[in-house]
Amino acid sequence: MTQTIGVVGLGAMGMGMAQSLVRAGFVVKGYDIAPGPGQRLAEAGGHAAATVAEAAAGADVLIVMVVNAAQAEDVLFGSGGGAAALPAGSLVMLSCTVAPAFARKTADRLAAMGLEMLDAPVSGGPIRSAEGSLSVMASGAPALFEKYAGVLEAIAANVYRMGDAPGLGSVMKSINQLLAGVHLTAMGEAFVFGIKQGIDPRQMYEVICASAGGSWMFQNRGEHILDNDYTPRSAVDIWGKDLGIVLETGRENRLALPLAAIAHQMFLAASAQGMGRMDDAAIVKIYAQLAGVEMEG
Amino acid sequence: MTQTIGVVGLGAMGMGMAQSLVRAGFVVKGYDIAPGPGQRLAEAGGHAAATVAEAAAGADVLIVMVVNAAQAEDVLFGSGGGAAALPAGSLVMLSCTVAPAFARKTADRLAAMGLEMLDAPVSGGPIRSAEGSLSVMASGAPALFEKYAGVLEAIAANVYRMGDAPGLGSVMKSINQLLAGVHLTAMGEAFVFGIKQGIDPRQMYEVICASAGGSWMFQNRGEHILDNDYTPRSAVDIWGKDLGIVLETGRENRLALPLAAIAHQMFLAASAQGMGRMDDAAIVKIYAQLAGVEMEG
Repeated sequence: MTQTIGVVGLGAMGMGMAQSLVRAGFVVKGYDIAPGPGQRLAEAGGHAAATVAEAAAGADVLIVMVVNAAQAEDVLFGSGGGAAALPAGSLVMLSCTVAPAFARKTADRLAAMGLEMLDAPVSGGPIRSAEGSLSVMASGAPALFEKYAGVLEAIAANVYRMGDAPGLGSVMKSINQLLAGVHLTAMGEAFVFGIKQGIDPRQMYEVICASAGGSWMFQNRGEHILDNDYTPRSAVDIWGKDLGIVLETGRENRLALPLAAIAHQMFLAASAQGMGRMDDAAIVKIYAQLAGVEMEG
Repeated sequence: MTQTIGVVGLGAMGMGMAQSLVRAGFVVKGYDIAPGPGQRLAEAGGHAAATVAEAAAGADVLIVMVVNAAQAEDVLFGSGGGAAALPAGSLVMLSCTVAPAFARKTADRLAAMGLEMLDAPVSGGPIRSAEGSLSVMASGAPALFEKYAGVLEAIAANVYRMGDAPGLGSVMKSINQLLAGVHLTAMGEAFVFGIKQGIDPRQMYEVICASAGGSWMFQNRGEHILDNDYTPRSAVDIWGKDLGIVLETGRENRLALPLAAIAHQMFLAASAQGMGRMDDAAIVKIYAQLAGVEMEG
């Protein structure tokens, strides 16, 4: 039996997931608040749904890949009415980055309506999403991983099973965002520290990538700085949101997170300077501004 | 003509450099404030010098690999009298981690005595030091790199030439220490954030090592946390010193370094809790303490 998958939120990540599912032979109904992405999905072999409820109706799985928790809540329980439109027993795959507490609460509300949920945030970026090779950090009942293995395989190269309880997937995503956000900010701090003292940025990049100071973020985003290219592959405002989730979760759990707090402040400053939609490597510009350093190329 | 190399400071790093030079065919005279290391070097084919001046006398190169700038100054210009004992025209290779300003001042003082200097801090740890496969981040006159290529090759797998001016090598080392120290602290912050919320540490380690939140430090030191093994491979107090150099250099150059400042504070706290000589992965224990989390294995 061919399964039907609804995908709500056809941004760079959701579209890649939808198209990967089409390629794997699923019937895919996509919805986005903008009309263009649904049309593009239809051209790629999927179907454009006119509403969230239309994407959910008759679906075995509804993937929610919107921007934040407020949108996810609206899609499922608010104006979208997605949960009410889903057949009994079907699955919501909550894949946007949300606070663990929101994931737990959402799972409870869905269960009360006779629906299942996987807390299943993803990582990997738009290119890996298009390839169907994301990482999924998911938690939920073990039987769900078996039942929906084909869906997970279609979108992901790695499926990390973080436990049975909804929330653990989102905790794992938050840990990754804490580290990645701090490393990205540290990259900005280090680049300006070196440039102000006369170090060639390309040489700095080469040495650090081969040394104990290296990180995935430094290696990946450092190239954007060297190229003076701030076309957003991941935007500054993502970090205002995701580090905000980390700190909110820290506050609820009485966890002091001084590095994450500093990184968050720096991204808020970048956003305040009009850089919210620039590539997140633009965090270096805030350090350059503080230091009175000119950043070019 | 066989060159003679004096090595002052036969700790884990200096001893490895001295023995690598012995293997490469140099005459090596080593000095340490403790008597044991000199004896071990002699057994390995080198010579134990009874004083700094004896290690420097007749040497083509004097490698200074002591703990900090105060010791380096004493070795060269204070009670050690190393600079005065060196033949005219010979080279001081300043390889301990010091502030760039100290490296510049030292080069000036040596030049006034007719001596050359390479500002040549190293990275890579005791194992790579013993193998002769360190990374050297060096600055100084180009002719010095040519003249002493054999010495550099004996101790290093990578020689990064950071420019002609003394100080640039130490700036590059400081950049690496800024990043590595922040990443190490972020690792502690992230581990406790995850553990407090019920994530299995081994699973967290596996996911992060394969994700955008990864860093060289997380991958390397995270294993020490998983093994509950705080035998020092690099000690907490190294970071009190090295991040102190980063911040002192930042202050001189009017560079705000908020992440490095936080990381420094956390290492000072670890030192205050009696962990100064433990492995630097013990930074996680400070976060655990703050969060009221038990850390074991």
